[in-house]
Amino acid sequence: MKTTIIVASPSEKSFSKKIVEKLSKKLIENRAEYEIIDLYKDNFNPVMTEKEEQLYNEGKADDELVKKYQQSIRNSDEIILVFPVWFNNVPAILKGFFDKVFIKNFAFSEEDNKTKGLLSNIKSGMVITTSESNTSYLKDKLNNPIETVIIKGTLEVCGMKNIKYINLNVEDKEKEDVFESYFK
Amino acid sequence: MKTTIIVASPSEKSFSKKIVEKLSKKLIENRAEYEIIDLYKDNFNPVMTEKEEQLYNEGKADDELVKKYQQSIRNSDEIILVFPVWFNNVPAILKGFFDKVFIKNFAFSEEDNKTKGLLSNIKSGMVITTSESNTSYLKDKLNNPIETVIIKGTLEVCGMKNIKYINLNVEDKEKEDVFESYFK
Repeated sequence: MKTTIIVASPSEKSFSKKIVEKLSKKLIENRAEYEIIDLYKDNFNPVMTEKEEQLYNEGKADDELVKKYQQSIRNSDEIILVFPVWFNNVPAILKGFFDKVFIKNFAFSEEDNKTKGLLSNIKSGMVITTSESNTSYLKDKLNNPIETVIIKGTLEVCGMKNIKYINLNVEDKEKEDVFESYFK
Repeated sequence: MKTTIIVASPSEKSFSKKIVEKLSKKLIENRAEYEIIDLYKDNFNPVMTEKEEQLYNEGKADDELVKKYQQSIRNSDEIILVFPVWFNNVPAILKGFFDKVFIKNFAFSEEDNKTKGLLSNIKSGMVITTSESNTSYLKDKLNNPIETVIIKGTLEVCGMKNIKYINLNVEDKEKEDVFESYFK
């Protein structure tokens, strides 16, 4: 069992980074195999270029980081995404991770205009977001965009299964007990 | 009346670029004032850095392109976004445009934990997407993510009003009559 954690947050002091620290501790306690992909630390370029778009259609990548990330994902059973919600959506650096890493013939195939997810090795996972607005605003007022666009419209399209969603409001940050209880 | 068109497509030969050409022709015919922001041509960097995140909270930007884009938006009455749908969402370069350009105190203010849109100068607009999957899949199967996350969850949060949504399937590309009829 191997877990890959993907984190997209510019600041080392952010709530997202604190969550990744907690997750790592739990995984170490459980002697679980895991890897962290830190998109900001890697200086990942999320812009898909014209050349990359052409290669995309052949199921190939040009960026060495993309190839490395693809190998990590292919060797994982579980995925955990951690990021702040910006405009009810993922930060650009994470959107570009989906655009450039989850390419045709790696993440999905297309037959008769139907998409088939290829990353069925990912049998469980979590999307953990941090937000300034409260959870009910995100989930109820905006039709739960992370669940719809990220989990259903991206991860599940690529064949990943059993992905749970947790939003942590920034106010929870200071409440250690609330915070801890999420990861019990 | 001034229109700003924002386009996010890596290839000059893309359907999105063809749409922008058509729109420009119409706007010229109508002797309307307009400007095109081509994020790829500008080589826009969509990644919000740690320093930019700190400035964000003060309502300030560091990137000269961001300041230029903010001026264009502030001087516009209408906005048109044109982009391909990638994973039922915007390309990363456009997500970063929202993250970095629509910052606090420019695009919205926060009082008593409530957000107030500041870009009410934008009184109408359009989001035109191009997609490989058909329109009913996008709208019905995935709860219309562009309408929810981009129009409601981003543009309207910033105070923009009357933003319409049109999706053009790539198959429409070849059907000049279908294509033309959208812009009558």
